[in-house]
Amino acid sequence: MADIPTHDVAVIGAGPAGLTAALYAARAELKTILLERLAAGGQLATTDMIENYPGFPMGINGLDASFAMLEQAQRFGAEFKLAEVQKLDLSGEIKRVETSEGIITAPCVILATGARPRLLGVPGEERLKGRGVSYCAVCDGAFYRGKEVAVVGGGDSAVEEAVYLTRFATKVYLLVRRDQLRATPVVQAKILNHPQVEIRWNTVVEEILGESKVEGLSLLNRVTGEKSYLPVSGVFVYVGLLPNNEVFAEQVELDQNGYVVADEEMRTSVPGVLVAGDIRAKSLRQVATAVGDGAIAGVTAQHYLDSLKR
Amino acid sequence: MADIPTHDVAVIGAGPAGLTAALYAARAELKTILLERLAAGGQLATTDMIENYPGFPMGINGLDASFAMLEQAQRFGAEFKLAEVQKLDLSGEIKRVETSEGIITAPCVILATGARPRLLGVPGEERLKGRGVSYCAVCDGAFYRGKEVAVVGGGDSAVEEAVYLTRFATKVYLLVRRDQLRATPVVQAKILNHPQVEIRWNTVVEEILGESKVEGLSLLNRVTGEKSYLPVSGVFVYVGLLPNNEVFAEQVELDQNGYVVADEEMRTSVPGVLVAGDIRAKSLRQVATAVGDGAIAGVTAQHYLDSLKR
Repeated sequence: MADIPTHDVAVIGAGPAGLTAALYAARAELKTILLERLAAGGQLATTDMIENYPGFPMGINGLDASFAMLEQAQRFGAEFKLAEVQKLDLSGEIKRVETSEGIITAPCVILATGARPRLLGVPGEERLKGRGVSYCAVCDGAFYRGKEVAVVGGGDSAVEEAVYLTRFATKVYLLVRRDQLRATPVVQAKILNHPQVEIRWNTVVEEILGESKVEGLSLLNRVTGEKSYLPVSGVFVYVGLLPNNEVFAEQVELDQNGYVVADEEMRTSVPGVLVAGDIRAKSLRQVATAVGDGAIAGVTAQHYLDSLKR
Repeated sequence: MADIPTHDVAVIGAGPAGLTAALYAARAELKTILLERLAAGGQLATTDMIENYPGFPMGINGLDASFAMLEQAQRFGAEFKLAEVQKLDLSGEIKRVETSEGIITAPCVILATGARPRLLGVPGEERLKGRGVSYCAVCDGAFYRGKEVAVVGGGDSAVEEAVYLTRFATKVYLLVRRDQLRATPVVQAKILNHPQVEIRWNTVVEEILGESKVEGLSLLNRVTGEKSYLPVSGVFVYVGLLPNNEVFAEQVELDQNGYVVADEEMRTSVPGVLVAGDIRAKSLRQVATAVGDGAIAGVTAQHYLDSLKR
């Protein structure tokens, strides 16, 4: 090859998946760079308390966990760079990553850009995020034991998570924009006559109310035009996730929802391009599954680089 | 159904996979029991220091990590029982688990029994385990930077891990029982002319020597009968893993090596029977991947139990 690449492995995105991939790659003495546009930890960094990552019996603050994982990856030699990836070229044996802080080249790239919840886009949402506004029932449901909550959405996720929340909340209001659920019939069956669930049809949230935490919702019935106030301690928004795939969407195989398709070794459709974490097409997006993906991607990166030397 | 089961979920084996599955199941308010015959943590509990489980920048003692994970699962209501599973009946909607401490019944069973390294079975091996005798290069390789080590075995794992160890060790002796490698040609190609690797053919280990840590090996050439002493700081044994499948081997689909076959949701060939961790047929067996499996199995257990209520 003509040019010597700057690195062996470039990991894009420093959430738990990217941090773990970088840890494994760096610990195997691969020259590893970890690129992150915002802050180490990704969605984890914005989580107040994570109770279900094994090893921390009393839970751990998301930011603390993020810093710990970053320190660990750096301890083994991973280079961390705050930089936005502006352009990626994944064709060819050496991949080219153009960032706001310069150009990185490497034979192996690990995509760990994650996903973001689609927002409702109403007043109060940004301000009360993490203070009653949640996008993850598995993460936060247990905090609402004995309380009343609302779930926004009508798809499979909204319905599944509303049922899940009845394990804790005394009552769950499901706020559905239309007069029917988008969820598949088998999923709908779980909720339609559930004693703890009240469905409000044709209903949209106009505002999330509360000073320092969620106290209630301002609702609008789209058919009757009637406005109402619903007092709840929490609101779970399930109007979809958005995969952070913008910078490579045309270059690797995606599923119909925009997530990166990979095999169990985290190999994408492009040789030398691996994936890990929430951006991967899979069923469960948790810190525990992200670190699993990351470890596999880090080891697969070693095997890939070894295969190039043959 | 005639009898009310004692539990919703029975998790067999309390390594990181079982501990995480129990944490997720219990946190979802499923009545969960975790059965373990030896001590919480499984193979993790016998690991002195684990450096590559994300969240612990300076590493964590295996026993401490095991206790932390157990405390976490118990905090959410998982019942932990030291008991040996003597007989399993996985047929029928309610599975029956006969243990040394009584009978457990549950609609969902999670198999997390792990695997054990096949031992060499030579003097010194048991005594120096964790003190220079290792069964995991990814776990312990980094401790041998600048030192000389031996790898025992001639298959894919032995060769792959010997190559891996050249990242740290100045010299790696590969001790092969026969006069050729069992490893596939593409794997063999990595090692045959590797400058840091010396292969000793027709060679078996007769004894592992050292007071408080490994100092050397007593070797025998099976063809010439010649005995020799090889001074090394570590010996990595790769003569195979043994899946702990004895109690259910006839009841779920296994791969040719005896590991449980499952889909990405951890579902085995038997409805209501899930799998997680090292006992699953997969490519990378690490704490990070075990907790990923465990989280998925815990969530799949919820979905399965919800489906029974319909």
